[in-house]
Order: sequence, then C-alpha cells, then structure tokens
Amino acid sequence: MEVTILGNNSAVPAHHRHPTSQVIKIKHHAFLLDCGEGTQMRMIDYSIKRSRIKHIFISHLHGDHFFGLPGVVTSFNHMGRKDDLHIYGPKGLKAILELILAAGDVPLQYALHFHELKSGFNQLMSHEDYEVWSFPVQHRIPTWGFVFKEVFSKPNVIKAYIDTYGLTIADIKALKAGNDIQLADGRWIRVAEATSPPPPSNVYAYCSDTLYDEDLVPYIEGADTLYHESTFTEEFREKAAMTKHSTAAEAARIAALAGVQQLLLGHYSSRFGDLTPLLEEATAIFPNTLLSIEGQTYSITKGKK
Amino acid sequence: MEVTILGNNSAVPAHHRHPTSQVIKIKHHAFLLDCGEGTQMRMIDYSIKRSRIKHIFISHLHGDHFFGLPGVVTSFNHMGRKDDLHIYGPKGLKAILELILAAGDVPLQYALHFHELKSGFNQLMSHEDYEVWSFPVQHRIPTWGFVFKEVFSKPNVIKAYIDTYGLTIADIKALKAGNDIQLADGRWIRVAEATSPPPPSNVYAYCSDTLYDEDLVPYIEGADTLYHESTFTEEFREKAAMTKHSTAAEAARIAALAGVQQLLLGHYSSRFGDLTPLLEEATAIFPNTLLSIEGQTYSITKGKK
Repeated sequence: MEVTILGNNSAVPAHHRHPTSQVIKIKHHAFLLDCGEGTQMRMIDYSIKRSRIKHIFISHLHGDHFFGLPGVVTSFNHMGRKDDLHIYGPKGLKAILELILAAGDVPLQYALHFHELKSGFNQLMSHEDYEVWSFPVQHRIPTWGFVFKEVFSKPNVIKAYIDTYGLTIADIKALKAGNDIQLADGRWIRVAEATSPPPPSNVYAYCSDTLYDEDLVPYIEGADTLYHESTFTEEFREKAAMTKHSTAAEAARIAALAGVQQLLLGHYSSRFGDLTPLLEEATAIFPNTLLSIEGQTYSITKGKK
Repeated sequence: MEVTILGNNSAVPAHHRHPTSQVIKIKHHAFLLDCGEGTQMRMIDYSIKRSRIKHIFISHLHGDHFFGLPGVVTSFNHMGRKDDLHIYGPKGLKAILELILAAGDVPLQYALHFHELKSGFNQLMSHEDYEVWSFPVQHRIPTWGFVFKEVFSKPNVIKAYIDTYGLTIADIKALKAGNDIQLADGRWIRVAEATSPPPPSNVYAYCSDTLYDEDLVPYIEGADTLYHESTFTEEFREKAAMTKHSTAAEAARIAALAGVQQLLLGHYSSRFGDLTPLLEEATAIFPNTLLSIEGQTYSITKGKK
C-alpha cells in the first residue's frame, strides 16, 4: 500500500501547495481520498492513472476537500469513461453534484453511485485485497476519517517446502488457495503444514480535518501510518481551537496514544511557508514523524519503517 | 484596457493549459471573465491582485467555465474580503453557489450579489470608465458573450492651448470637467475651443463557447479585439458542429464579417498540443490573428495594433 499526496494545504492554496487530495494504491486498486480544487490537474502532474480510480472518498463539505470533484467527475466523462464510479461522502454531496451536472446538461456515460457516510465505525468496503472504514472526527461540520487496510487473505507457502519438494507455481497457487497437493511420487503436501498464516494487514488512517480528540484513538490504533492534520503550531493553539483544527503537537500526541508506527503531517496553514516548525513540534513528542510533501509517495508497509 | 489569459483550454485540462478564465483590466478596475477550475491558483501564478476584482462574469454552466468559482468566492472570504462581489451569470448559478456555501456552513463576511443574464443585447454595467454588455451566443446550453468598452468620457485639452497659455494641472482638470477657466490676466479659455472630444471607446468582445453564427456580428462589430473560441481546425468540422463549437477558420470569418481590428483565438481542444494549425487556418482568412497564450497580457488599445 502507498499514498501519493496531491495536495496538503488548508483553505487557500499557497506556497505552491494545493488543497487536500491523496491517492491510495493497494495492489492494482487506486482510491482518491478528498478532492480539493485542481485535483484533476495534480493527477496529470503526478502521473496518476485516472482510469484506475473507481472509488472516491470525501471527508467533509468544506471547499478545500471537494471543490475538485465536479471537475474529476465531468473530465472522466469527457475522457470516455465507462466504468462505474463510487463516491462516499457526507449527506448533501449528491444533491450538489446532481445540480451541477443538470446545469451543464451533459449526461454521464458511466454510472455514478453515491454512498452516504454514517455515524460510528463503519465498514464501507470489503474486498479480498482491502477494507475501507469510516469514522466520525470533530470539525465545524460533519466530518469523517478513514481507515484503509491492505488485506493479505491468502496464506504464504513456507519456503523450505518449496525448496525441499521442488514445488511448481501451480503447486504454490493450489496451496495458497487452500488445497492439499499430491506430488508425482504420491506423497501429499498438506496446507496445514506447508503454509504459514497470511501477514497482518497494512493499515493507513486518515484524520483531516479535526480537533484534538482522544476518542479517535480506538479507530486508528496500531495503524502503520497515520495522516493527521496539523494545520497550526502550538503558538496558534487558540486559532486551532476556534477553527476546530489541530496543532502539530496534538497530532503527535494522538499518534503516540494510538501507538501508530509513523505519523504524516499535513493540511498546513498558509501562514507556514517553511514547514520546519510543524515537524520540530511533532517530532519532540512522536519521533517517527514526516512532513507530507506534495507529489511524494509514501509506502505503508510494516517492513519499511 | 488589457486582457490577461488565465486559461484557454477546452473541457479537460492538458498541455499545461487550463480551463477558461480571463482578467480584463480597465484603468484601476479588474473583471474576471469565466472561472474554470484552478482560476484562483492562476491568479496567484500571474500576480493578479484578487482584491481588485469586484465583478465576475460567467458565460455558461459548463464546468470548464465555472468550476473555479466556488473556490474564488470562498477564498475571498478566507482572505478577509469586505468589498461586495457581483456575479453575472446564467439562471441556476445562484442556486448552485448557495447550495455549496450552505453545505460548508461558512457564512460569507462580504455581500455577494447575483445578476441573472437575460436575452438580447443587454447593458450590464455603466460607469464613467467602462461599459459591459452581454448577448446570446449559440451553444448546447444557454450561453452568453460579453462586450467590454473602455469609455473616455472626458474631453482632451488641446496641447497647443496648454503650451501657449501655460495651463496648470488645475486648469486642465477644470477644462476636462467642462468648466471654462479665467487666466491671471483676465482672459477666458473656453471649453468649446480648448478641448477636443474624448477618443472613441476601446472595445473587447468575447465569444466562448459558440457555433459559427453570423447573428453575433452586430454585437461585436468594430471591436478592437475579438476573442472568439476556436476549439477545432476545419479537419474536425463535424465534431465542432456536433459539440456546438467553432473552427479557427470560422472564428476568422466572424472576425472579418465584424470588421474587428484583431482576433484572439482560444478554447483549444486538448487534441492540439501544437497550436500552429489553428493559427495558420485563421490567418489565411483574417491576417491579424493571435493565439491567446496562458499567462500573457494583450493590450486592447486602438493605437497598438
């Protein structure tokens, strides 16, 4: 699993940083997470294969998280898309998009499916390669966070068995599918002895935009990477509280409480041209912190911390 | 008067060209003409003073002409704008913007005024420095063209009078305001003899998006600069007719029929990375044609052709 940052600035674009959007890739699946204005241009800039995106998740209805969505939806149409597109977002998003599409009088050539986000910890998708969950966060309007899990549903065939018995690709596939195999000499290789359980899921948690809120911890506990908004430094704590955003120190505290492996900062206020103060503030509390940088891709894999 | 091109690509952004938007400057006034996605970022890129924009004109409700408007309206708010903002656009635009603003639950700190475009040749604004007019063009949905006039309402004081009588700045101001003046030696200088009539208006006409339509000629006749969409070359004439767009040759024919001084091409199809074929096709019919280039500013002044 990996995440590519298409935009990580809050509110007004500045310092060549754009409003929030990310692409999550799990195997050959791609998911768009938030869709600030200009997301379709960033997908071109950063060579994202737009046709691979079949699911879009919108955290809330502030413009810097969804003003790029009408452009993505209509450009997909211009580009001849036929595949269904699923949008998971807050109540109200469907009505906005439908009004805009009706005004332009351009019928979509593909099916658009809306899924309204609900309260609680909700499983939005379940697939043999991944799971997606949503949960409420605390912001000025109804807002959701998301958890993406890269699922390894098939067992691994133990290497010693492959070497000792000269297992073929077909043998390995059969064992992974849960079938015992018989060798040419008549001996049986049993799934139970020749395989080890699949590795645990890789987990990415996304919390933007939100106040510092310890109630989020159960949803994101043990994530490999947590993206937590860090709009301000502690110097602007009052501003953060007033606008229901977090400081970098607060993001770090949540990361520590949730026992995540790595923290990725983002949703930076335009007042920060230089982001070093945000990073310093967070690393003092949670050392394994990175600044998310637009255009960069971050691996979300247990072995790569 | 001058026009700065913020975007001139049709439909899907490509070749580092962005959807349609322009800024017209007349003296210290600035007008935004269409507002495709990313317009607020282009205003930063091209150093447009956003606070100077008090009037926005939207030609029609296809996304590549207005998907940047919610971002402009809300970013103005984030930036602390207090000045009123006037939006002139098709029926339906007000409802879309109001739905989006309500969803975000961010009350605007400035007054937003909507003006619905009407049929016929309509004067939208009248000011001592300028006039703005709208007129219908032929596209798939209701669409308008615009005429901007730089008005010179005050007479010029004849230079020979200034030199001969040693007129002061105050004298000149008084004469331009229509008042006779008395010199220190008692002699009178009369407005009627010391001034020449103000020069004729500079005129910019904008037609995007539209079919080839000779009915437009009366609205744009004699313009100093005509921006006329040229989405395709003649090779794609069928595609132009189907999508209700014009070819470069058709834009040139309209320019010739309307007797304009200069033609500015734009709204290029993404199929053209190199725009030379569009320019060649137009100049064969109307020699004084320019390709509009994003980020460039074009003077609209009678003396500068």
